[in-house]
Amino acid sequence: MKECFERGPFSPEFHAAAELIGKRWNGAILWALFHGLNRFGELNSAIPGLSARVLSERLKELEDAGVVEREVTPDTPVRITYRLTPKGDALRAVFKQLNVWSMAWPSTHDPVA
Amino acid sequence: MKECFERGPFSPEFHAAAELIGKRWNGAILWALFHGLNRFGELNSAIPGLSARVLSERLKELEDAGVVEREVTPDTPVRITYRLTPKGDALRAVFKQLNVWSMAWPSTHDPVA
Repeated sequence: MKECFERGPFSPEFHAAAELIGKRWNGAILWALFHGLNRFGELNSAIPGLSARVLSERLKELEDAGVVEREVTPDTPVRITYRLTPKGDALRAVFKQLNVWSMAWPSTHDPVA
Repeated sequence: MKECFERGPFSPEFHAAAELIGKRWNGAILWALFHGLNRFGELNSAIPGLSARVLSERLKELEDAGVVEREVTPDTPVRITYRLTPKGDALRAVFKQLNVWSMAWPSTHDPVA
């Protein structure tokens, strides 16, 4: 069991992954990217309540974590798009499971009318 | 897609689930419970760096979220155990996926020697 723990949730990798998923807005941003939205404005308008400033911060963090790539196309005006890296795309399976769980076991708090 | 978004990551359920998973220590605590540790002292000594005070707070939050049950056995001394509810047990699938991902795609930061 000790070995399992070391490779599992007590590893820096697991901590980092869980915190990445759990950080506010990241779930919504990644989900929008999974669904093909890739321009800043598209992401911004697709996610209710998320400000442009916070979206920008989160995208930078996701880039630093290696899950998102930013691409600048020298057009007029300059076009900036975001895409999932293979590492980011591999998160789909985690999100799917989390979404299944969250629908199967809704929170007992903040019930939706 | 709109409907998918509403049922998915923009729903309060998905937000709550992602934040539950992502909150510091919750991953380790739930993983220890998945592996059959169920006494406060066992959990406390199994998770390096986690203080008794924070463990106690997290267990209360996990109880409030409906994923953990606390059981008091009137023994001498009183025995307090924690167990996963069916809702908590159902998180195994999410953790498994997250663990697979975190091992397959280790963080580019804080590399482990």
